[in-house]
Amino acid sequence: MPTIAVDAMGGDNAPEEVVKGVAQVSLETDIQSTLVGDEAQIQAVLNSVPYNPAHIGIQHTFEAIGMGDNAGDAVRRKRKASILVATRLVADGQADAVVTAGNTGAAVLACAQHLKTIRGVRKAALASVYPRQTEYPGQDQLALLLDVGATVRCDAIELVQFALMGSAYARRISKIPSPRVALLNMGTEETKGGEVLTRAYRRLKRFSGINFVGNIEGNDLAKGKADVIVCEGLLGNVVLKMLEGLAEVVVDLAGTARRENWRWKLGFLMLASGFGGLRDLTDYTAYGGAPVLGFEHLLIKLHGRSNARAVENAVKVAAKTVRDGVTREIAAHIEQL
Amino acid sequence: MPTIAVDAMGGDNAPEEVVKGVAQVSLETDIQSTLVGDEAQIQAVLNSVPYNPAHIGIQHTFEAIGMGDNAGDAVRRKRKASILVATRLVADGQADAVVTAGNTGAAVLACAQHLKTIRGVRKAALASVYPRQTEYPGQDQLALLLDVGATVRCDAIELVQFALMGSAYARRISKIPSPRVALLNMGTEETKGGEVLTRAYRRLKRFSGINFVGNIEGNDLAKGKADVIVCEGLLGNVVLKMLEGLAEVVVDLAGTARRENWRWKLGFLMLASGFGGLRDLTDYTAYGGAPVLGFEHLLIKLHGRSNARAVENAVKVAAKTVRDGVTREIAAHIEQL
Repeated sequence: MPTIAVDAMGGDNAPEEVVKGVAQVSLETDIQSTLVGDEAQIQAVLNSVPYNPAHIGIQHTFEAIGMGDNAGDAVRRKRKASILVATRLVADGQADAVVTAGNTGAAVLACAQHLKTIRGVRKAALASVYPRQTEYPGQDQLALLLDVGATVRCDAIELVQFALMGSAYARRISKIPSPRVALLNMGTEETKGGEVLTRAYRRLKRFSGINFVGNIEGNDLAKGKADVIVCEGLLGNVVLKMLEGLAEVVVDLAGTARRENWRWKLGFLMLASGFGGLRDLTDYTAYGGAPVLGFEHLLIKLHGRSNARAVENAVKVAAKTVRDGVTREIAAHIEQL
Repeated sequence: MPTIAVDAMGGDNAPEEVVKGVAQVSLETDIQSTLVGDEAQIQAVLNSVPYNPAHIGIQHTFEAIGMGDNAGDAVRRKRKASILVATRLVADGQADAVVTAGNTGAAVLACAQHLKTIRGVRKAALASVYPRQTEYPGQDQLALLLDVGATVRCDAIELVQFALMGSAYARRISKIPSPRVALLNMGTEETKGGEVLTRAYRRLKRFSGINFVGNIEGNDLAKGKADVIVCEGLLGNVVLKMLEGLAEVVVDLAGTARRENWRWKLGFLMLASGFGGLRDLTDYTAYGGAPVLGFEHLLIKLHGRSNARAVENAVKVAAKTVRDGVTREIAAHIEQL
């Protein structure tokens, strides 16, 4: 059984929700979890819920990186921060993957400092799942968007590598045998979006290892045209935050409905019951995990607001990626390139 | 009174809705409109509605560029296409500005071929208005996003010029004396987003002619943090199409509500009545005009689905920009830079 190092101190609801999520995993599965953080706080939460002590270890550390901290500074100064200690457990062979709901920049830097890059990979990518409409039977309700902020600008080969990494991850996680891979662009024609995107398009078209469906545009992101959407970090980050902002508006709307106005309340409830998408959108910030791809081991980054169920889900997903050999599959694809 | 050249053959509802919009303008104002397109078709529509013939001229041409045509090819082959003839009227001094709901690429190319670039401007930009929440009293409900697709990649000076052009346009159109200008980026810190964005940030911070409020992120686009949002064309195009896609989902939802399900119907109507934003969003594709900035005369591009009211509004806006000397103001700012 895989061992997952869990950053107990990362996220808006840490350590409470993180520890509760891990406790639930310990009861339901044989996955080994190592909770990394302040032992007294972790044990206090564990004492408040049922859990299986045979499946949970604690690695004590007193430092933690806050959500608002500058990632670069914090990673340099706090060498014993929980996210760094958790990632070092993986680097030292004491764990197989990392789960954190903490500072995104610190999580990516922790990987860069402590994990080995897959041979041939030029840049790591942060991928994020988000809900959208489906178009074919069996299609997953979640699409994978990468990179959403580990990089700023990318060249054509880097984008092609992101496509391969995202495709391999989606194939394992979503059980779609051949995920549709697309480039995010300002038009569908092969020559749109400048030299980098045109070259990436031509390389992807020639590569038989993935199901490349061409370019998609901004209005296609809410549709099911692609399962893996590839772009540079600047673009992906803006897109992801727009999707999150939209989710916030819907959540606000639901909150306002609850508090204030019977018309809104009734309207929102009726709409939500008829239209699953809105509900999915409000939920996904709690459940969407974002893998950092490109290293020999995976780190899954959860949204800062994650609750126990989101943590539970992420630990299970992390264990599955280890059992399925996702990073070995990525390595094999990169080698073929 | 300004003369506006109106592409009567451009858009999904041309010439019908375009001509009706111009007819309405002719009754309400002293604006001179020149309808460019098939005279017989134009006259047939005019005969079906009240209008003031003293305010409307017709410039006959038999060619038109379709919404789905490749813009580059079409502009080369159809030298007498309505959008090209309309733009040449402005170039020849027979009109002061152009309005079209037709093919966006063709509209931008028409400007590039026939209009003089403002001295010092390195690249033209297509700007688009979109509705979002407001944060301060008197703030316009519409923000201006540029560039949304006239460019692909931009350097720092080009982004700074977009900021100046967008600020000057917003100041005149929205009557906000000092519109807040922001760069769209993957973080709020000055050093985010790579070299080009960092250099643009530093130049804008030093420039006293505009109210630069720093970087905004994807989730801020729905909020009122900025009135003018600046980015390169690739990013702006994806963002704009996401916003349009969202509007489509809301429109679909409303349509489904009407057709199918009493719960959806009631829910949507209640929500829409309580939350102006959703209604704005479904409307803005009909009313939002996108100016092409950077030339000595303006072209206002309407959404392809525009109805008569949208055309009417755009012709009035175009006339106002002429009267207010918006392009001269842009030129003065560029000179200061």
